Amino acid sequence: MTKEQIGAKIWAIAEGYIPGSSHGPEPQMTSHETACILNANESEASIMITVFYEDREPIGPYHLTVRGRRTKHLRFNDLKDPEPVPRDTPFASLIESNQPIVVQHTRLDSRQAENALLSTIAFPIG
Amino acid sequence: MTKEQIGAKIWAIAEGYIPGSSHGPEPQMTSHETACILNANESEASIMITVFYEDREPIGPYHLTVRGRRTKHLRFNDLKDPEPVPRDTPFASLIESNQPIVVQHTRLDSRQAENALLSTIAFPIG
Amino acid sequence: MTKEQIGAKIWAIAEGYIPGSSHGPEPQMTSHETACILNANESEASIMITVFYEDREPIGPYHLTVRGRRTKHLRFNDLKDPEPVPRDTPFASLIESNQPIVVQHTRLDSRQAENALLSTIAFPIG
Amino acid sequence: MTKEQIGAKIWAIAEGYIPGSSHGPEPQMTSHETACILNANESEASIMITVFYEDREPIGPYHLTVRGRRTKHLRFNDLKDPEPVPRDTPFASLIESNQPIVVQHTRLDSRQAENALLSTIAFPIG
Repeated sequence: MTKEQIGAKIWAIAEGYIPGSSHGPEPQMTSHETACILNANESEASIMITVFYEDREPIGPYHLTVRGRRTKHLRFNDLKDPEPVPRDTPFASLIESNQPIVVQHTRLDSRQAENALLSTIAFPIG
Repeated sequence: MTKEQIGAKIWAIAEGYIPGSSHGPEPQMTSHETACILNANESEASIMITVFYEDREPIGPYHLTVRGRRTKHLRFNDLKDPEPVPRDTPFASLIESNQPIVVQHTRLDSRQAENALLSTIAFPIG
Repeated sequence: MTKEQIGAKIWAIAEGYIPGSSHGPEPQMTSHETACILNANESEASIMITVFYEDREPIGPYHLTVRGRRTKHLRFNDLKDPEPVPRDTPFASLIESNQPIVVQHTRLDSRQAENALLSTIAFPIG
Repeated sequence: MTKEQIGAKIWAIAEGYIPGSSHGPEPQMTSHETACILNANESEASIMITVFYEDREPIGPYHLTVRGRRTKHLRFNDLKDPEPVPRDTPFASLIESNQPIVVQHTRLDSRQAENALLSTIAFPIG
């Protein structure tokens, strides 16, 4: 297997939620929702993210790139274009890349004094 | 791949437990058990959930729909028909849809002053 | 798909650790390591668990059964025969069933005043 | 299935982060990032880990072995050669073995007084 084949081109994260408040020093302890992306290929990956909501049409695509042989821990908090992801609102996301990547979903929730964490591998589709 | 093919039609979550007490503002910090569902298809998904217990027959199906291009973060706490899911009781669930969906399992446990979180992709079956 | 085909017969959990201390009321808040098992078949599943350690030979098999159409949330804390699983000791486990099951791994760690949780789908092998 | 076939030879963990501070007794409560590895084979597994960063070239391989019929809960905190993994820095990892293994990713974050946990099965590649 060559490193060109590491991962999948389409991933889904059915859970998404950016807690609306935080405790502790920024930016480490700011409540955040993250898609951790590994691009083990030699060349840059061009990625589109679509965000799905409960009560309105999906928003996107959000565009980003991850250089070859790099990871990117993308905070949904930082998405701006076409519009920010609202806080305290359930969402889901679909991540499509022009070459294979690996995606893991992590949240840090610091709404209360002591932070909580969750993580899971995202769901690989194709 | 078309978006009609995103996910699986049957999913299992072997873990299930709604903590019987909570701290903090409702409904965000209420202890809850969630099946986050992404329906990336154009059309509505018709979904049946069966809940399995340790010491009695399974209960269900619970019926719900998720509109096309929408997500739904379903709290097991909110299931009512054919009967509510008891608190402080281990269960598991089987989720069957008439078209492909993606399912992720999340719990917020606020029995103590500071909440804890867990999440995992559910198990896709077919 | 019939319910006879839900899951896999062999699962691995590479992480395992029973924290040696606890805070809060027993047994709910006792630090524990759990294999949540769903047997969606009509008939009883006969299951063997082997526990692997870092510095000594594997121990097992531990034998258990899960009735048809039932779940069992098995605490590794409760395994007794051939020997208890030591606390504060890294382990891993292999779970083999005579028919398909679904396995999810969960830990509640209450060594400190506020509990922490983790969970993941186990790794299906065959 | 023989135990020689349990797992995959290549795994990816897209999330990685060693919190830079800790509360509580060492080493149990030291903030750590762990790759839990199960080698259910009879013979030793020879493993190479490559660590990917956001802004510089990957570092590795780190070499380790896991004896046959053993688990190893490897803390990224303990990697030394070719260089330590920096704290408070996002990374990802690729784990390659000469025979099948199972890998699960766990973090204990004790930056605040009460620890948080996350875990997920790693992503099996081939």
